[in-house]
Order: sequence, then C-alpha cells, then structure tokens
Amino acid sequence: MLTLEENELLTRTGPGTPMGAVMRRYWIPALLSWELAEPDCLPVRLKLLGEKLVGFRDTSGRVGILEEHCAHRKASLYLGRNEGDGLRCVFHGWKYDVTGQCVDMPCEPPQYRFADKIKLRAYPTVEFGGIIWANMGPPDRVPAPPKFEWTQLPETHRHLTKTWEECNWLQALEGGIDTAHIGFLHWGLAKKAYGKLSEDDPTSFRLRAQAPELQVDTTDYGFRYAGIRHLGEQGDYVRGYHFVMPWTQIRPTQAQGSGGGAGRKVEWKSTIGGHFWVPMDDEHCMVWNWDYSFGEQPLSAEDRYDSSAGPENVYEDQGFRKKRNKANDWLIDREVQKHKTYTGIQGVNTQDHAIQESMGPIADRTTEHLGSIDRAIIVGRRLLLQAVKTVHDGGDPPGVAPSYYKLRGIEKLIPQGADWRAELLPPMYQEEGSKVLAT
Amino acid sequence: MLTLEENELLTRTGPGTPMGAVMRRYWIPALLSWELAEPDCLPVRLKLLGEKLVGFRDTSGRVGILEEHCAHRKASLYLGRNEGDGLRCVFHGWKYDVTGQCVDMPCEPPQYRFADKIKLRAYPTVEFGGIIWANMGPPDRVPAPPKFEWTQLPETHRHLTKTWEECNWLQALEGGIDTAHIGFLHWGLAKKAYGKLSEDDPTSFRLRAQAPELQVDTTDYGFRYAGIRHLGEQGDYVRGYHFVMPWTQIRPTQAQGSGGGAGRKVEWKSTIGGHFWVPMDDEHCMVWNWDYSFGEQPLSAEDRYDSSAGPENVYEDQGFRKKRNKANDWLIDREVQKHKTYTGIQGVNTQDHAIQESMGPIADRTTEHLGSIDRAIIVGRRLLLQAVKTVHDGGDPPGVAPSYYKLRGIEKLIPQGADWRAELLPPMYQEEGSKVLAT
Amino acid sequence: MLTLEENELLTRTGPGTPMGAVMRRYWIPALLSWELAEPDCLPVRLKLLGEKLVGFRDTSGRVGILEEHCAHRKASLYLGRNEGDGLRCVFHGWKYDVTGQCVDMPCEPPQYRFADKIKLRAYPTVEFGGIIWANMGPPDRVPAPPKFEWTQLPETHRHLTKTWEECNWLQALEGGIDTAHIGFLHWGLAKKAYGKLSEDDPTSFRLRAQAPELQVDTTDYGFRYAGIRHLGEQGDYVRGYHFVMPWTQIRPTQAQGSGGGAGRKVEWKSTIGGHFWVPMDDEHCMVWNWDYSFGEQPLSAEDRYDSSAGPENVYEDQGFRKKRNKANDWLIDREVQKHKTYTGIQGVNTQDHAIQESMGPIADRTTEHLGSIDRAIIVGRRLLLQAVKTVHDGGDPPGVAPSYYKLRGIEKLIPQGADWRAELLPPMYQEEGSKVLAT
Repeated sequence: MLTLEENELLTRTGPGTPMGAVMRRYWIPALLSWELAEPDCLPVRLKLLGEKLVGFRDTSGRVGILEEHCAHRKASLYLGRNEGDGLRCVFHGWKYDVTGQCVDMPCEPPQYRFADKIKLRAYPTVEFGGIIWANMGPPDRVPAPPKFEWTQLPETHRHLTKTWEECNWLQALEGGIDTAHIGFLHWGLAKKAYGKLSEDDPTSFRLRAQAPELQVDTTDYGFRYAGIRHLGEQGDYVRGYHFVMPWTQIRPTQAQGSGGGAGRKVEWKSTIGGHFWVPMDDEHCMVWNWDYSFGEQPLSAEDRYDSSAGPENVYEDQGFRKKRNKANDWLIDREVQKHKTYTGIQGVNTQDHAIQESMGPIADRTTEHLGSIDRAIIVGRRLLLQAVKTVHDGGDPPGVAPSYYKLRGIEKLIPQGADWRAELLPPMYQEEGSKVLAT
Repeated sequence: MLTLEENELLTRTGPGTPMGAVMRRYWIPALLSWELAEPDCLPVRLKLLGEKLVGFRDTSGRVGILEEHCAHRKASLYLGRNEGDGLRCVFHGWKYDVTGQCVDMPCEPPQYRFADKIKLRAYPTVEFGGIIWANMGPPDRVPAPPKFEWTQLPETHRHLTKTWEECNWLQALEGGIDTAHIGFLHWGLAKKAYGKLSEDDPTSFRLRAQAPELQVDTTDYGFRYAGIRHLGEQGDYVRGYHFVMPWTQIRPTQAQGSGGGAGRKVEWKSTIGGHFWVPMDDEHCMVWNWDYSFGEQPLSAEDRYDSSAGPENVYEDQGFRKKRNKANDWLIDREVQKHKTYTGIQGVNTQDHAIQESMGPIADRTTEHLGSIDRAIIVGRRLLLQAVKTVHDGGDPPGVAPSYYKLRGIEKLIPQGADWRAELLPPMYQEEGSKVLAT
Repeated sequence: MLTLEENELLTRTGPGTPMGAVMRRYWIPALLSWELAEPDCLPVRLKLLGEKLVGFRDTSGRVGILEEHCAHRKASLYLGRNEGDGLRCVFHGWKYDVTGQCVDMPCEPPQYRFADKIKLRAYPTVEFGGIIWANMGPPDRVPAPPKFEWTQLPETHRHLTKTWEECNWLQALEGGIDTAHIGFLHWGLAKKAYGKLSEDDPTSFRLRAQAPELQVDTTDYGFRYAGIRHLGEQGDYVRGYHFVMPWTQIRPTQAQGSGGGAGRKVEWKSTIGGHFWVPMDDEHCMVWNWDYSFGEQPLSAEDRYDSSAGPENVYEDQGFRKKRNKANDWLIDREVQKHKTYTGIQGVNTQDHAIQESMGPIADRTTEHLGSIDRAIIVGRRLLLQAVKTVHDGGDPPGVAPSYYKLRGIEKLIPQGADWRAELLPPMYQEEGSKVLAT
C-alpha cells in the first residue's frame, strides 16, 4: 500500500517531475531501428516521458530525435521533409540537423537569417540491438551504453517487438516483476486443459506449487529475485529474475515443454526473455518484448513466436496498439474462460496487459493489500523512491553503471532444500557473481 | 430556477455527496435478474451513484454486488472467474464470496495467507419483481424491501426493461414527473396525423386541453399529483400520478385507444406504468421502464410493446445504450417532424430522452423559468432538498417506510367540476387512502 | 514570441473575455445563406465565440439567431419546430420569434401565461453576399454593415464556401496573413513538378525569391502589407494584401498560369480572394473562403474551383469538417511528398489547415521565434492587443467604420526598384487611397 503522495511520485514522469528526473538519467528505448529503416526515410512521431518528439534518419544515416514542433511558428515536424542531412519544416522551410541545430532558413532574406541562433531540443542517441536509444538527461551525466547481453548478439539470436499499453508504466512493471501470477493468469487451467500433466512437464512445475516462496536480493543495478516452488522429492523449481533500474526485467525461459499431452516433458533450452516498460505519458507506456538465445543455436521460429506482440497482434500503423485491447475487452471469450484457459484472453502478453489495464489508467495503490509474493514489488518501489532521493541530492541512481551487461535470467530444478543462490547465481552472472547489497 | 449551489446539491450523487447520502438510504434497482441468469453465470459490470461495481450470482444462487477492483493489486473482477461460491480474480486467484469476504488466497504460501483479513465493499441485495436491488447505505438503516405493487405480480402481469440515458438523473426525473409535455412532445401533431379525432379518443383528451391544471399533494412517501384537463360538457380528464422518493414515478396508462382513425374510442384498461431514474454517475443514469396489469388479464403483447426501451431499441451488449442516441441526433427525421409527429423522433421514451439529453450533461437550472405546470417539479426539488437536510441531521428521508406498496397511478374522466380527490384517491390507494401532509 | 498572458489574451474569445469583447463589436459571418434556404426551413446549430446558438428563417423570411436552449426547462431548440413565424420548443411548445421574444406558451392555462416576460438572447442579423451576419455586441454600438466589395456583387461574380478548422482562430489568421509560406508549403516543389519553369510563369515569380521582403502599413481598418520578391531585370513581383480587423484577409489572385509545362505564362485576371477566420470556441474556428471577379467577366468554373473547401472536400452534414483532417493526418501521401509536392497533402487550403492544426489546439507562442517575414503577424498581434485596450476603455476598435468597403488585394510585376506604394496603392483602394497611419 502506498500513500497518495508516493503513488503520485512513482507514476508521474513528465518534465519537471522527480521520477521523470530519475528516468532521464538512463538510456531510453525510443524506436525500433526498422522504424527508421534507411537514410532519408519518413519521420516518425513518438512520445517519451510525456514529451512529444519526432525521429528521423538523415542522409548520412545519423538518427535525430527532436522536440516535435518547429522553433519558428510551432508547426509539427512530423509533416516535415527528411532531406539533405536534415528535417525540414514544410511551413517555411526551416531545416534542422540531428543535433537540433537549425541549418537552413530559406524563407528569410539573407541579411535577416538567424539559423545559427536556433536550436531545437534534441536528444543524443545510440543504436544497437535493433533499438534506437535516447538519453534525455543532463549531457554531463550520460551513462554507459545499455549493452544488455542480447543487444550484442546477431539478429539470428534475438527477437524484438513492442506493444502500446494503455496504462501507467508502473502497473506494467509491477505485473512483470511478479512471478506468482504465472500459475494463475497464464496457466491456471492448464491442468484441466492438458489433461493430467506429467511431473516432468514445465507447466506442472508452475502449477504444483502455485504459491512460490519469494526471495529478493538488492544489487547495485536493482535487484535479483527467486521464485521457489517446492515440488517434493522432485526438487525445488527456482526461477531467477533480474530487475535492472528503472524498467527492465530479465526473465528465464529455459524450461520449455517438448512432446504433447500427458507425455510432455521439460526440455532445457538456452533462451532468455525480458521487457522494458517505458512511459509514453502518465497513462500510456510502451512495452518492449525481447527474447534471445545465449547458446550456439539461433532462435527458432517457435522461440520467436510472440503470443501477444508480433505484427499479427498489433496495429503497427496505429502506434503499435494491440488488436485485442481495452476498448474491446481484449476480445475475452467467456466460453474459453469457462473451460479452457483461466482468462479467456488469447496471448500471454495480452493477458498481462488486460489485467494491468483493468486497474484503470493509474492504479489506486492506496487501497491495495500486498502479501509475501509481492516482495519484489515492494523492493522495487523502495528502490525507485530511493533513486528519486539520490538523484535529487545530485547522485547517480542504480543501474547507470554497466554492471548489468552480463545478467541472465535462469531457472532450474535443484535438489530439495538446496541453496538456490549457490545453484543459480553463477549462471545468472555468467560465472562472475555480483556484489550483493542486501538479501 | 435554482441557485448554482442548489443545482450542484441535487445533481451530485457520488460517495461523500449530500444527495448521494440520501440515495444510499433506499433500495436501488441495480440489475435485471436476467443479467445474472443462473448460478455461476458471467460477472457483470455496473455503475451506481458514481461507484464502479461488479455483480455475480454464485454457485448457490446468491447474488453479490462488490466494488469492482480486487483488494490485492486492484485488477478488475469483471475479468474474474465465477466459480465455487465466489468470484475469483484471475491475476492471482484471490476469491470473494457474495459478502465481499475473501475466502481463498492460493497464491500465498499457507503460512502467509491472510484471507480472513480481506473484505471488499459489498452491498446487500434483495431480488424480486425481476430486479436485483442493492442497498448502499448504513447497514443499521436498511429500509423495508421495495415492494411496489407490480413487483409482487407474476411475470405474466408485468413487463420490465432498462435504458441508459446520457444525462444527469434529475433531468430524467423532471421529465417524468411532468404531465404537461404529453400533449406536445408526444402527441402535439396527433390531431393532424390522425385526422379529426373523435371526442372519445384518449389522444383527444390530452390534446383538447394542452395546458393542464396541476395539483400536487405532499405525502409521507413523496407526493401525488393530478393533471386536470377540462373537456367541457364531456367532463374533466384527470391523470393521477405518484412520485415516490427519490426516483420513482407511478403513472396511469388506463385510457387507451381502440379502433382506428376518426372512429377511435377510449378503452379503459387495468394497466399502470412507471419508471425509476437511477444515477450511474453525475452525467449518466439508468432508466428503468415497467408496466403492469392490476386486473385479472395478463399484459398483452401490445401492452408490452415498449416504444423505446425494448431489446429492439437498445444495445443490450453495450450497456443498454439506445440505438437512437445523442451521438446520432436520435435519428431525427425532419420530414416526419414536419408532417407527422411533433419531434420526428421515433418512440415515446426516446422522445423523452432526446429532450432531456439535449439540455446537456447537467442542465443549467440557474437560467430556467418555471411555470404553473412545473409545480410537481418544484415540489419534487423541495422534497429532495429537505431530505438532504433530514439525512444530514440523522433522520430518515420520506419513502423508506413501506407506505408506497399499494400506490396506483389512475386516470379518469370525471364529471365537470367534480372533486378529483374524491374520485381518484380511493383507487390511487386501493381504497385505503393515505395521510395527506399538504395540498 | 508572446508571454503566456498575451497568448491567453489573444486566443480566448468566449463571453466575458477581453478579446471576446473586441470581436463582439463586429459583424460576424454566422451562416451561409443557403443553410437557411427558405422560410420555415430546418433550424441549424452553430457556435460563435464559445456560445451555442440556433439559427432559423421564419415564415416571413426573417432570420433569427438565438441562444440554443429554451428559457423554460433548457431543452435544445435545435430539436424545435420552425413554424408560423417562430421557433417552437418541442418539449412544451414555447415559441420564440426572431428577436428571441417568447410569443406562445400553450402549455400554461391562459391565466398563468407569461410569454411576454420571456426573451431569449438573440442577435441582430443582416444578410447579403450569401452570408447571414450576426452582431453579438452592445446594441448601441452596432457598426456599419460589412459591405466588402464582393458582398455587393451578383452571384455570377463571387464564390463562397466554409470549412471547419480544428484549432484556435489565431493560428488560422496567422497562417493567412503570412505571404512567405507560399513558396514553401504550397509551391516548394513546383519547379521539380513542373520541370524548368518559364520566367513568365507566376509560380516562378513566387519561387525565384522565396524570401520576400515584407512591408506593413498600419491603417484605420487594420493594415495593408506587401510581399516583395526581387526578380532581377524582370522586375519586382509585389503582392499587396489587406488585413481588416479582426479576422479578414483580402488577397490578390490576379497572376494566374496559362498554358502548360515549361511554356506556362502569366495571365493577369481580375480576381481577388480572401478569408474570414471566425472563432467557434477556443479550439475550433470556421474558415470562410471567398473569391470574386471585380471585372466584367463572371467567375469561371476554374476560378470557383476550391482546392480545399468545396462540397467535394468537406462533410457539409458534419459541421463542414474536412474529409482530409487531423484525425486521418490529412491523408498525407508520403510518396507524393517525396517527389511531387512539398507536403504530400492535397489542396492548398488543406495544406494551410494541416500546418496550423499540427501546432496543437492552441499554439504555444511562448517558445516561438519570429523573423522578418513575420512582420505582418507581429503588427497584427499589436493591433489586436491595442484593440483590447481600446474597447476596454470604451472606444471603438479599428475596422468598425466602413473604410474597408473598397479594398482590393493586388499583385503586380513592377519595374525593378520602383516604389510599390505608388504602383499598388491606387488599385488597392480603387484609386481613392486611404489614410496611412504608419509605415
């Protein structure tokens, strides 16, 4: 439960807000690289932390992310012409380069031109991993580039989509760093749907102990946490996640089902998934969905199948809005809900979005009741509130140093009662470990 | 004419408002029984007095009306599973019974469960007459059940629908307790449309003296009023209504036309109609429409024909919105308006809604000009304002005692100059009369 | 650049606002005459300066413009019946004549009628030039009728349409009194599209010197201004405009192209165009588009061709909304933009609207940067702000006296370096001149 003040503090991210100041200290996933497919391609509109922006790739291939409106008379540069290493306003032809500098002012007689005095707000970008990242913070505090492991892999080994979610970013984050809902929202009826599950079925792992034990360790980048499900003599099924400040989840996807029906067995793969939940404004966020293979095998078509966010499930030409969305009740099928799946809603990601969007544009956390399974959420809020104070006091928030580059989400079946940290931490850090701040 | 303060006082009904406190003292028509058709049926969303709620019927057939959002993380229970004598949130499986008590918390390890400490706001219900009624007031002040005469009749003798109206509840009420508009809004061109009407045609009764004389008597349940139309030697045509606090109208529908064209004559039937106008929020209300036969004859198909609110005229799957609604100008047909009907709008109820919705979401009563025909409205407002004071002072508002159970709306053709009270009051009270507070 | 206070002052025009008080001193284009085509036609809704109104033409042909809501119970008179020299409310039959006087109150018994005491707010109108004009100001300060030259011509010589624009009126005005954008927004790619233009092509005049020199002379009706493009030995191409307070532009359209392709030459015609930009409310305005011939020749079909606002381009039954509008990104065709036209948007007027609407509902002028080409805009704002003060102090604002009756917008190719005032002012005033206040 939060006070109204705390809830406001955590959910408001526009210019001038304390949480907005924290977020502006990180690299922000701004655009998919393919949205600016080639030099001189079309400009695109985007919204980050409440700011309306326009992105373009210039003739030389450089990316610009500028405030949306021309400095002259405030026309939208989204209507602009991307030409000759700059984005030109079609009202009077003022042109801006990727740094926001006005470089042409053809409507003025030569003696009156003052292009050198005009500069739009522009944000530095880096591009890798299929993403154009922007930094909206103080130029002297730009952090290390956001080289999550998967961003350094070839396209064969990674898969990336994004989806517009119609609620505040914190609802999305708090849905994501919550392992306990898996056995309900996503799999609650699986036993019924699949028949009697084999003990070796990964779904069975998640269903046999629906109430996981949660352990959370604070780190210098955020926290890691384990959801432990005790399966008796079969062992303990442990799912180890990372939360990297301020909006990143790294999630294990190794235990996958192979075969069919009651004979389905676990197959351990070398895959990991995750999300970024990035505020567009206070009532909308962009959910970035990624999967990758850290083994030799590339991602298979099945690995790439995205149950919610692929082009078949979003309107890419309508801001990546879901086809199953709040306005149509996520196309809930009540017959399916009665007999086949827990929600009657198709797609794991859509199930997440539905439940989060159903809380309203900004959830009322003053009347909630958290339990033991919400420990990761509680720690996450504490970290975010501490980061507000740290940044306010002039410090650097967690997760700006590159200590998160090698993180992996790992799940394992370990011997009953074994120490999960001993078993999981080495692979969660690629054998190297990390300084644990608190457990 | 009201002051701005009075208008606000009468029109705002959300939690914490004075008028909201009055309304919470009554039984509120919440759902049609068929909306929760059987045990374990789908949950439904509803909105009453600004509160978002969810209704369900459990495995044992009991009805629950709960606040919409789960106490855990505020997900909507509308997405929930109605199963095993409770409504289960699909996020983490918390389950609530019809009293709002949390009865299952499967996501928590057993040692951490605290279901017994969690209770959602839930409202007691009663069910009869095809309606699920809720009481949202103090548990120690729940009034007698709302046994209007028709609610005690078999289905053969009653007809019930509801329609979403897109304006404040008071506009709807004030449209309903206004007899004078009948000869204009609904019948203004009837003489033209029907040709020369017979003197014995009930439409003729209403048209020959368009300006009725209004007499209003305050009672212990609200007021009764008569609209008197002087028809010369043929007598006085008197329509006797009741207004039962805070939103009920009981209206005579006995004088109906029989035969066709100029030969149409009055046929006196044993039928009565009425409405409830219940706030959903301050800019929307739900209009309940009912008709019944108090004679031996059941309602005929014609009696059941609802000129506005039947399934053919509302989108039942879109919150009972009218097909002819504000967004499409109620499908007004200006040619029909020119030559055939006064409004060009189809359906008596839709005509009422159109005129009321046309005033805006909340009518500006600070600039209106009431006349003698608006006496019932003036008395109604005075009663409502008095009830605000009464409830604020700890008392019971009018109409919570069961003195309204036997009320009937009655219309008659009485001898010229006869005393309408002597003629109409006995049948309006089923021969028993009622204490008259003021005339 | 304006302060926030100045921007608010100029853009807010509702009842009680300072700029609203200025605007109410003029005759306001309210309706196209054909919208009230004949006696007893349908009433129409309209919105002027934030006021919701209803217009009708009575049985005698007189026009009434009244506040929208009936004085009795505030029902909309838009649903009313236009009959027998008055507009009748369909709720209870109250009827109003064109002066707003209530002339019938049939719902009241005769002894209670008080029609003589009821008068709706009504605005005086005049009608000529295909327009119904209203005056919403103090009755003792009604100005001379708005007899712009074209309003006195037969229909053969004039053309008139209107278009709903989805932004504040000042954006529309400031787009219109800006000659410099012609060579960009409308013609920026013309050279490419037309091939190598002949020096005698009027498009070439506008493109060869994209940065015009602007000279603005304040007058007793507003200002006149010249956009001067130096074409070397060919001469100076000068376009002379008038701005008549508070929202009128008079624009030359004489230099038109004749022939095709590279052989196209200028043909000098006797035509003029212009606009009124009239606030509906603070986020919407109505753009009136007119063209006329001041010569003997009537307007040709080509002259009447309206690139944005004709019936083929607006939904006349949806408030004159553009078919290419903000919600559909003005149907911008990015391929066309790349290769054929500067904007990819079809229609000169739609291009104007698009760029103006792209600034948002009310442009943020606190962060703009004006240049030399924006002189007319700067002078315009100064005039409007002065008028606010003048009216506040009890004076008459510029442009209420009939000094604007003979104004013409004139364009000419004058000898290199010649005095544009000597060349253009006589025809711009039909030889008579006008008192110049400042240059």
